[in-house]
Amino acid sequence: MTDRKDRMGSAVWLYGVHSVAAALEARPGEARELMAASARRLSGELGQRVEELRLPVKTVPEHELTRVCGSGSHQGLAVRTPLPGYVAFDRLIRARPSLVLVLDGITDPQNLGAIARSAEALGAGGMILGKDRAAGLSPAAHKVSAGALEWLPVCQAVNLARTLRELKQAGYWLYGADPAGSMSLAEADFSGLSALVVGSEGKGVRPGVKKELDLLIRIEQKGKTPSLNAAQASAIIMAKILKAVAA
Amino acid sequence: MTDRKDRMGSAVWLYGVHSVAAALEARPGEARELMAASARRLSGELGQRVEELRLPVKTVPEHELTRVCGSGSHQGLAVRTPLPGYVAFDRLIRARPSLVLVLDGITDPQNLGAIARSAEALGAGGMILGKDRAAGLSPAAHKVSAGALEWLPVCQAVNLARTLRELKQAGYWLYGADPAGSMSLAEADFSGLSALVVGSEGKGVRPGVKKELDLLIRIEQKGKTPSLNAAQASAIIMAKILKAVAA
Repeated sequence: MTDRKDRMGSAVWLYGVHSVAAALEARPGEARELMAASARRLSGELGQRVEELRLPVKTVPEHELTRVCGSGSHQGLAVRTPLPGYVAFDRLIRARPSLVLVLDGITDPQNLGAIARSAEALGAGGMILGKDRAAGLSPAAHKVSAGALEWLPVCQAVNLARTLRELKQAGYWLYGADPAGSMSLAEADFSGLSALVVGSEGKGVRPGVKKELDLLIRIEQKGKTPSLNAAQASAIIMAKILKAVAA
Repeated sequence: MTDRKDRMGSAVWLYGVHSVAAALEARPGEARELMAASARRLSGELGQRVEELRLPVKTVPEHELTRVCGSGSHQGLAVRTPLPGYVAFDRLIRARPSLVLVLDGITDPQNLGAIARSAEALGAGGMILGKDRAAGLSPAAHKVSAGALEWLPVCQAVNLARTLRELKQAGYWLYGADPAGSMSLAEADFSGLSALVVGSEGKGVRPGVKKELDLLIRIEQKGKTPSLNAAQASAIIMAKILKAVAA
């Protein structure tokens, strides 16, 4: 068990079956108590772990969980524990992951969580978030990530342009996802260490960030719908970078 | 303008900027009236179209839109119009689209809408939905699709297994997305006409549907997160089938 008393004051309620399971697996020593809509929610492996950890469990009605979580998507289960902490930039790139995600101005926690889920599942090694007008780690993002935010190192950058220059110095190629990009994803050939910058759906990657990038990649679109959403577009590009779509 | 008086009785409120714009572009003759949180929402091209169509516009407070739409994600704009209709199977495959999506037991309208958005944007030619215990066309799905459901022909199948056999007879290869699939996406080589079957996140493609398929495709996953979500997994596979990721 980890001893992180310094953060224990800031416990929140993380909710959803996958999120709770991941939080208990990744940081068993930080969990304080559980809330469940029925004892059934704590069967199998998860129930065993809760018993091992001797965590107090309170059974409450669904609407009480909804009130405490501030969301109806709790799936009948929540744990009171701190959010996973941010890691320092140096620690994030120490293992030289082949792909790092960089989110520029993603304000929707659902989008942040969805991108984190795909990133971790496909094998990205970290995620960097801007600090200004951007979603950060939250119970809502944790839920949508299906617990991926327990495993994916996340760093918060005060100045995203400067962090991109540091990535470049560390040997990373900087790619941006952009519907008007000069190179189609089909032509792109990713080798070496990659950082993929994903902008907000409305505005895309901001100009001040864009000018730091080596290459803007576009996904060829044939339909009438204005654009792919940020989570889907980044999943498609990540899958190619991580060689999940072609050898 | 289309004359579809037979369906005009079943008008609903479609909401969200892209959804409203797409509904007015695709089916101008069916719209009855608009509701906007402020006149600003109807500037530019959209405002011009509303004027051309001489549609009545009611300005109402945000909370009234939320009440009428049954959702807070209306972005200050809604139109009263019928949902786009389902098309017959024969009409859906008449143009022999290179990719048809088949959703098996997707119950979440958000997932349906997200998959429709990627499908249409990437160039899929149609979507087939099961009728039993599955999400159908709805204002919520329409909103998340960013209007893609106006352009993507959607067919509702009473018996999904039988419809798959009809697809096979029409010359389609039947692929399923499955985390335990026998072939990795990286190895898969899609040629000819493809139908991609996507199951629900919890249960995947049902056994009765699975046995009709030619090949189960898995996306190689390296992380600890249990699985990709259905919308992201299908976007990644669709992008490969439609040659958006590699020539």
